[in-house]
Amino acid sequence: METWKAIRSRRDVREFSDRPIEEDHLVRILDAGRRAPSARNWQPWDFVVVTDRDDLVELATVFVGAAHVARSAATIALVAPILAEQRELEYFDLGQATVSIMIAAADLGIGSGHAAVADQELARRILGHPEDHFCAHLIPLGYPTGQPLFPMRQPRRRPFNEVVHRGHW
Amino acid sequence: METWKAIRSRRDVREFSDRPIEEDHLVRILDAGRRAPSARNWQPWDFVVVTDRDDLVELATVFVGAAHVARSAATIALVAPILAEQRELEYFDLGQATVSIMIAAADLGIGSGHAAVADQELARRILGHPEDHFCAHLIPLGYPTGQPLFPMRQPRRRPFNEVVHRGHW
Repeated sequence: METWKAIRSRRDVREFSDRPIEEDHLVRILDAGRRAPSARNWQPWDFVVVTDRDDLVELATVFVGAAHVARSAATIALVAPILAEQRELEYFDLGQATVSIMIAAADLGIGSGHAAVADQELARRILGHPEDHFCAHLIPLGYPTGQPLFPMRQPRRRPFNEVVHRGHW
Repeated sequence: METWKAIRSRRDVREFSDRPIEEDHLVRILDAGRRAPSARNWQPWDFVVVTDRDDLVELATVFVGAAHVARSAATIALVAPILAEQRELEYFDLGQATVSIMIAAADLGIGSGHAAVADQELARRILGHPEDHFCAHLIPLGYPTGQPLFPMRQPRRRPFNEVVHRGHW
């Protein structure tokens, strides 16, 4: 798919069909995240991919807003080091990886709708990451039920001319 | 350009040619940022676009690592509210907008290489944003000198099988 079409087609998807994600598509989506830029190329992320249905159902309980994880074809858990400093930089870079993943998914017609993690101990028990890491975010993936992804003409966003300032605020 | 090609072609570019960026391309790149996802759709960003050469030269002095801003065809300044709380969430979302901008630019053959901001007062004087906002980041844009953007086969990143864990860490 053309890049501009994929960027406009990415939307928050929380209802997923039963269709699984092909292995080579999942690899591409993960590789998009791996390729994301980061400060001094420190790459403060690991990706734990969950596809087992029982694990997905359990993972969906780590946050009240993560229920759709249970129905996802796959969920990528962003795991990152617990830092005393530079947490803002870390989150900035995790955001960069997240959008890389979501645009690569949209390109393949695959929806995503990321979720935060509240119960870190439960997440650790399911995902198995070490004590000095935490799960920053979940990215559930799957084909949307109903309407497939399509370029949005009028995304629910502040108007262009309000957001963009030319030369000076 | 195909999305997967654009994602693989995005690289850090700091040497820009004199070729200007067409207005409709600049609008598309900015619109990609505007469309980025954010927590509860709060969109904690404004984009100040600088194309005036004198302003770019001055803006390049806000951080020791921002010298290439002076040579950019255009630089997008990410301006965001100064928050007492939820700064990590804010940075996460600014990272999401940043990569959306950079992938949209790569799609058009336009390079980018973002830079931090140290001298906030100087940035404010040039950009003119209000006191309750700060400049989180600069995204200089331009056509690369020398080699155009091309898909990287071996990006300088941790190996796929080190970053990706299947089912469990």
